[in-house]
Amino acid sequence: MANFDFKNLYLVNPCELDDECYTRAMHAQKIVDEAKIFTSFEQAVKDIDYLVATSSIESKNDKRHLRNAILLENLSKQLYEVDGKIGIVFGREDYGLYNEEIAACDVMLRIPTSESYLSLNLSHAVALVLYSLYLKRKTIPKEKRTIGKIEKEKLYSFFSELLKEINYPQHKKENTKIMFKRIMGRAMPSKWEYHTLMGVFSKSLEKIKNK
Amino acid sequence: MANFDFKNLYLVNPCELDDECYTRAMHAQKIVDEAKIFTSFEQAVKDIDYLVATSSIESKNDKRHLRNAILLENLSKQLYEVDGKIGIVFGREDYGLYNEEIAACDVMLRIPTSESYLSLNLSHAVALVLYSLYLKRKTIPKEKRTIGKIEKEKLYSFFSELLKEINYPQHKKENTKIMFKRIMGRAMPSKWEYHTLMGVFSKSLEKIKNK
Repeated sequence: MANFDFKNLYLVNPCELDDECYTRAMHAQKIVDEAKIFTSFEQAVKDIDYLVATSSIESKNDKRHLRNAILLENLSKQLYEVDGKIGIVFGREDYGLYNEEIAACDVMLRIPTSESYLSLNLSHAVALVLYSLYLKRKTIPKEKRTIGKIEKEKLYSFFSELLKEINYPQHKKENTKIMFKRIMGRAMPSKWEYHTLMGVFSKSLEKIKNK
Repeated sequence: MANFDFKNLYLVNPCELDDECYTRAMHAQKIVDEAKIFTSFEQAVKDIDYLVATSSIESKNDKRHLRNAILLENLSKQLYEVDGKIGIVFGREDYGLYNEEIAACDVMLRIPTSESYLSLNLSHAVALVLYSLYLKRKTIPKEKRTIGKIEKEKLYSFFSELLKEINYPQHKKENTKIMFKRIMGRAMPSKWEYHTLMGVFSKSLEKIKNK
């Protein structure tokens, strides 16, 4: 993190930050000192506007949206086009992220690796993602779009309501909601675009309900 | 290495490859098994056509050619334009490469890092370089230039002889030779280009000697 100018480390139920941890941190002990500790994932990501899950296990099936991934190089460029608090979520060294954690994120990111050895160790995965972001940071555009977290949540709940109102098959609902989230996640809409979309959805809902 | 499809590991005077080493290698133990062990740097690089040194300590002074670096992203693209055996040289975890080892290489590579924390740990440096090369590998051009190791050495010795013949100041010689090597290293000339240059140098030498 220090090598690439990242400062804010959030830890969820970490192991003890003991002497070995500080020794290994070398000249970056300040990051360990200032790390925020949380007892749950939900609590940790509460104030983050845009969440990026990382995983080596990707779904090749377009219909399984949970693990439909975008590639690191593409994401790095996109992330600097938006304003707001962005969180990159890394999982456990042995297991990675759970499905429900990935589902809570806006996009899933995959680092391109060899077909014959997909899984990176945690430390390398972090280094590669932060390096890629660091490189792109130098070309930050002047005009930024603002991610509206509140607008985003509202839009998703509109979409969810819409599914309900159109009697969308129960067993397909979750997957379709995640798909929608993924599409929005890749598009990174602006506040204004969210509002416009919400307008469409709320009008649709109105029509359906008053029918 | 396994994550990015690299196979050939050369080690110079390594520590014992013990159980811990194999445990940490996870599913890449084959690379450790097949690693070539050498007792000197010279011996290790004997059959390599093009050598890339890695270091975080760069010279900002254009006149100090030894550590004039090219950036990782630029090198990755270039390396796939040439044919031949390429070696990426990483130094010791604590000290990096010695000056004489860097001098023996064709170019020096620097991974862009934060001004406030330049030095990467060895494992991260390797991961970043191999990842960058892995990404570029997918766009290999059809037409490749062949690096002529023999031609290269010949050209350097011509240049060295030329310096001698023109009574180049003794104390400036080494630095100037390295500068020439660096220029050639960045240019990655083809066999044919080497021959052309050698023709120029040998003609010049001839002229000087017969004066």
